Amino acid sequence: MPELSPNPWEWSEPEWRKIVGRARAGRPLRPASWPGGARCAVTLSFDADHETIPLRDADQSPMRISQGQYGNRQGVPRLRALLARHGVKASFFYPAVSALLHPAEIRGVAEEGHEIGIHSWIHEANTKLPPGVERDLTLRAAETLEKVSGQRPVGMRTASWDFSVDTLAIIREMGLLYDSSLMADDDAYELLDDGKPTGIVELPPEWIRDDAVYFNMVRFSALRPYTPPSAVEEIFRAEFDGAYAEGGIFLLTMHPHIIGHRSRVPLLDRLVDYMKAKPGVWFGTHAEVAQWCKDNAAV
Amino acid sequence: MPELSPNPWEWSEPEWRKIVGRARAGRPLRPASWPGGARCAVTLSFDADHETIPLRDADQSPMRISQGQYGNRQGVPRLRALLARHGVKASFFYPAVSALLHPAEIRGVAEEGHEIGIHSWIHEANTKLPPGVERDLTLRAAETLEKVSGQRPVGMRTASWDFSVDTLAIIREMGLLYDSSLMADDDAYELLDDGKPTGIVELPPEWIRDDAVYFNMVRFSALRPYTPPSAVEEIFRAEFDGAYAEGGIFLLTMHPHIIGHRSRVPLLDRLVDYMKAKPGVWFGTHAEVAQWCKDNAAV
Amino acid sequence: MPELSPNPWEWSEPEWRKIVGRARAGRPLRPASWPGGARCAVTLSFDADHETIPLRDADQSPMRISQGQYGNRQGVPRLRALLARHGVKASFFYPAVSALLHPAEIRGVAEEGHEIGIHSWIHEANTKLPPGVERDLTLRAAETLEKVSGQRPVGMRTASWDFSVDTLAIIREMGLLYDSSLMADDDAYELLDDGKPTGIVELPPEWIRDDAVYFNMVRFSALRPYTPPSAVEEIFRAEFDGAYAEGGIFLLTMHPHIIGHRSRVPLLDRLVDYMKAKPGVWFGTHAEVAQWCKDNAAV
Amino acid sequence: MPELSPNPWEWSEPEWRKIVGRARAGRPLRPASWPGGARCAVTLSFDADHETIPLRDADQSPMRISQGQYGNRQGVPRLRALLARHGVKASFFYPAVSALLHPAEIRGVAEEGHEIGIHSWIHEANTKLPPGVERDLTLRAAETLEKVSGQRPVGMRTASWDFSVDTLAIIREMGLLYDSSLMADDDAYELLDDGKPTGIVELPPEWIRDDAVYFNMVRFSALRPYTPPSAVEEIFRAEFDGAYAEGGIFLLTMHPHIIGHRSRVPLLDRLVDYMKAKPGVWFGTHAEVAQWCKDNAAV
Repeated sequence: MPELSPNPWEWSEPEWRKIVGRARAGRPLRPASWPGGARCAVTLSFDADHETIPLRDADQSPMRISQGQYGNRQGVPRLRALLARHGVKASFFYPAVSALLHPAEIRGVAEEGHEIGIHSWIHEANTKLPPGVERDLTLRAAETLEKVSGQRPVGMRTASWDFSVDTLAIIREMGLLYDSSLMADDDAYELLDDGKPTGIVELPPEWIRDDAVYFNMVRFSALRPYTPPSAVEEIFRAEFDGAYAEGGIFLLTMHPHIIGHRSRVPLLDRLVDYMKAKPGVWFGTHAEVAQWCKDNAAV
Repeated sequence: MPELSPNPWEWSEPEWRKIVGRARAGRPLRPASWPGGARCAVTLSFDADHETIPLRDADQSPMRISQGQYGNRQGVPRLRALLARHGVKASFFYPAVSALLHPAEIRGVAEEGHEIGIHSWIHEANTKLPPGVERDLTLRAAETLEKVSGQRPVGMRTASWDFSVDTLAIIREMGLLYDSSLMADDDAYELLDDGKPTGIVELPPEWIRDDAVYFNMVRFSALRPYTPPSAVEEIFRAEFDGAYAEGGIFLLTMHPHIIGHRSRVPLLDRLVDYMKAKPGVWFGTHAEVAQWCKDNAAV
Repeated sequence: MPELSPNPWEWSEPEWRKIVGRARAGRPLRPASWPGGARCAVTLSFDADHETIPLRDADQSPMRISQGQYGNRQGVPRLRALLARHGVKASFFYPAVSALLHPAEIRGVAEEGHEIGIHSWIHEANTKLPPGVERDLTLRAAETLEKVSGQRPVGMRTASWDFSVDTLAIIREMGLLYDSSLMADDDAYELLDDGKPTGIVELPPEWIRDDAVYFNMVRFSALRPYTPPSAVEEIFRAEFDGAYAEGGIFLLTMHPHIIGHRSRVPLLDRLVDYMKAKPGVWFGTHAEVAQWCKDNAAV
Repeated sequence: MPELSPNPWEWSEPEWRKIVGRARAGRPLRPASWPGGARCAVTLSFDADHETIPLRDADQSPMRISQGQYGNRQGVPRLRALLARHGVKASFFYPAVSALLHPAEIRGVAEEGHEIGIHSWIHEANTKLPPGVERDLTLRAAETLEKVSGQRPVGMRTASWDFSVDTLAIIREMGLLYDSSLMADDDAYELLDDGKPTGIVELPPEWIRDDAVYFNMVRFSALRPYTPPSAVEEIFRAEFDGAYAEGGIFLLTMHPHIIGHRSRVPLLDRLVDYMKAKPGVWFGTHAEVAQWCKDNAAV
């Protein structure tokens, strides 16, 4: 295919169809029922980015690096305690550099039965890397996580959900069970590669179900934590209520250095209480949910 | 007229009067009464942009394209079910490329009695196109919609409401009944072309009555969905209350990939319940409202 | 004084003292009592910018110009009706071009007893004008307002409160009673010109008490009307409560094309009801408040 | 160490470890108990920036300078009265230029028993200064504060919490008791300098516990005070509740020209009432809290 015009209105139909066709949502993988006959599935994830957010930007500010260390020092301990209290297993996605900076943390998380997932090398943006670099970093990240945590990852979440045009091929080469970066549905689906089924499960995240969207603070942009916890709780509950009504998945993405603050952990605590109070809610890791969907998709 | 100074304070009175005089609001078209003697009119619209938002920006990100596909896969089905449940007909505006990507969807929407309206070729910004391109794209878009949906559009909403200095002439050439892009009023009015009546009905949208304003998320800008559904519901109700009190139109613009999420569809559901509970509220498509206003404007 | 270093930490004490000393707040003009022995003063103002917002930016978009026309077509009529219903006189600040575009409106406003104030030529930013232009535009603006409205302005509010280093000299040359652009206090004060009293009354506005701050929408920035009317009402009430408790002034700045919408006029209506329900609240125009403060400042 | 690659994914492990290791959080300094056997500690601080915000940007706008003067004219007097009413001592951090502009204010604050802390020369951003300048400005700032206020500062908060890679060495050279700029914890900790204990106490602030985050307004950015006082109160209360539950520190950063407005002082007043109503809450200045933590850290 020749080079694309910079003016999208000049693109031919094959051109825009090709762009749209990559990593497309295919067969829905909503199961006929959930484990134990549950009505819906809840799967919580924590992207343990810690110091890699400023590092990724080549930002050496001790202040911004300290914000990352908070995730290790206060965020993760509070969240592990909360999960233990509720008897819930979750998925923790680690950039490799974060795992190397905090090996005791990731090993402890893994030993408590939580899932460890791939989440880039140093939180790099895949769509801005030179050719070939994404594959190299992703493979090294998976090896690093296995070595440090003792657990071989079966799933991946791209950093910033920045799934590139090369990501799907890398996932297939690695033989992963699932990805969790794309948003074409609320429930699991099979990824298509230029129209061909891949067997890869997509577990869709959404910005709506992400703590950073509401709480992030970036000094030199206009991002501010304008939304109080009670309003974020309203949004997360409404997303869960929809999943419960439809018998689908409620997948929530959080960050230890963001949700882990004193004013925010209670919102997660109340949310888990709320969900556990409903009959028929199954809590699983991303890997468990993906495997169940793959094995039990309604035909 | 010679070229304008870049300094507006140096413009002569004829210069700024000419700029202001294009596509100006003319005769109010508020009818003496609504169909069946109703007290006010409600008209819901959905801009089914789907994947054309990233395409318009030449953004090939599979993640952002998947957000568009969500509109087709979850948004529109939920909204069609909601409209069917309430017995309400709405107006769906499609970029041509979105219609071509989702022909079964647009045909289904049309078959259920909803209106199909023009909404650009690929969500291009009219005011940034080279000369002549807007006319070509708009005409091809109208033909495409008719061919794919089986319904000949009679109305248009420019993408991003980006009505250019050429748009009115194109609308007149096409012989459309109405436009829905300009905001000089809450109720219908006749468009003036440099002071001359055109017979074209303007059905004013407003950012206040748009879901994207409150809910949109753009990763690399500072746009975040800070406003919880309950606050958006407060705003939409207050706009409806004003229309009800004045006997005017309540026109609401939404996007399937935005309002169609599990946490947001219930807000629309509650809003329709609220409006239906009031005596004398008539629900019509944009085309029906525009025709009624044209035929029944109080003199 | 030689040219300033671009690095403020290198400035000498005379340098930063000179910058700080221009248009400085001097003697407080809080009166011992308000007219009729009232406890506090409320003064409402409307900056009737209408189409001058896009014109000021050399933005010819018919859509954005239509948003300005809304101020004339729906905003001002609703606000005049509200003020008449409550028996309250307010201050309307007009850019000259807005007055020329809507002579019947400004004349009607003036005839109803509201104050007409100066508000630039075409909403230009004073601090970005070439030398000398601000004076010329301000003088022409004052003449235009007098000719069109029949009322000689005695006060000024700079557009966007963009008071320049030249503005005070222009105000003094024109012999105005007051300015309303600077924010060093909640209550009236006398302006100092490099330390010397000027006799000019400053009536401080504040972004906190401005509708645009919460409600403005700029498509290509990240400004969105995230705050629902109930939250804005909370803020305005709290500012009034403070003025009431201290016996000071509650000065509110609004824009017909912003506050004039159906969902927002009721908030102003409820606010006026709330304030009128308190004993001892006096409503005056800016000119009346400024004159009272000048004549009755506690010594 | 040779120059770093601009691509962080190419950094070697020693490279990113060195960046992360500067001014790192070391030994927790949470005391076994608080003075008088109290359960938790509350420490309020006010960064009295006043006019230095526009000056720091070389912004000579009389309007923006007047916003700073508000801090002196209305903000600080209201806050001193509030603190006196509650019998609470707080910490006031002054840029030296602010102290020089308002010597009576800072002397009065000091005489009432509040702490005076270092806060830059003119609110400069440390990470953008030429080499060596930070040290010179910080030393001159400390001398100036001592001379003007009569109190020798023992603690520092960098302006905008912009702690640079040189800041820790300057703090050590000055022999300060504590810093309050880094955010690796909620409670006090000892700072490490490339892994070596320094004896310096870090009292972590957080954007979450800062008034400017929610209330700041920057005309030409997209920063707006979108969050109403009641929502900010919810957030501050939740942070305090966490500190109370954990027996830690609740440290709140405010700015007289921001929190000092009529609509916001009551929120602080209610918050202090709320905290005082709980048994076992000790209020101390930053210096008192830092000294207590240093002397009583649990081993």
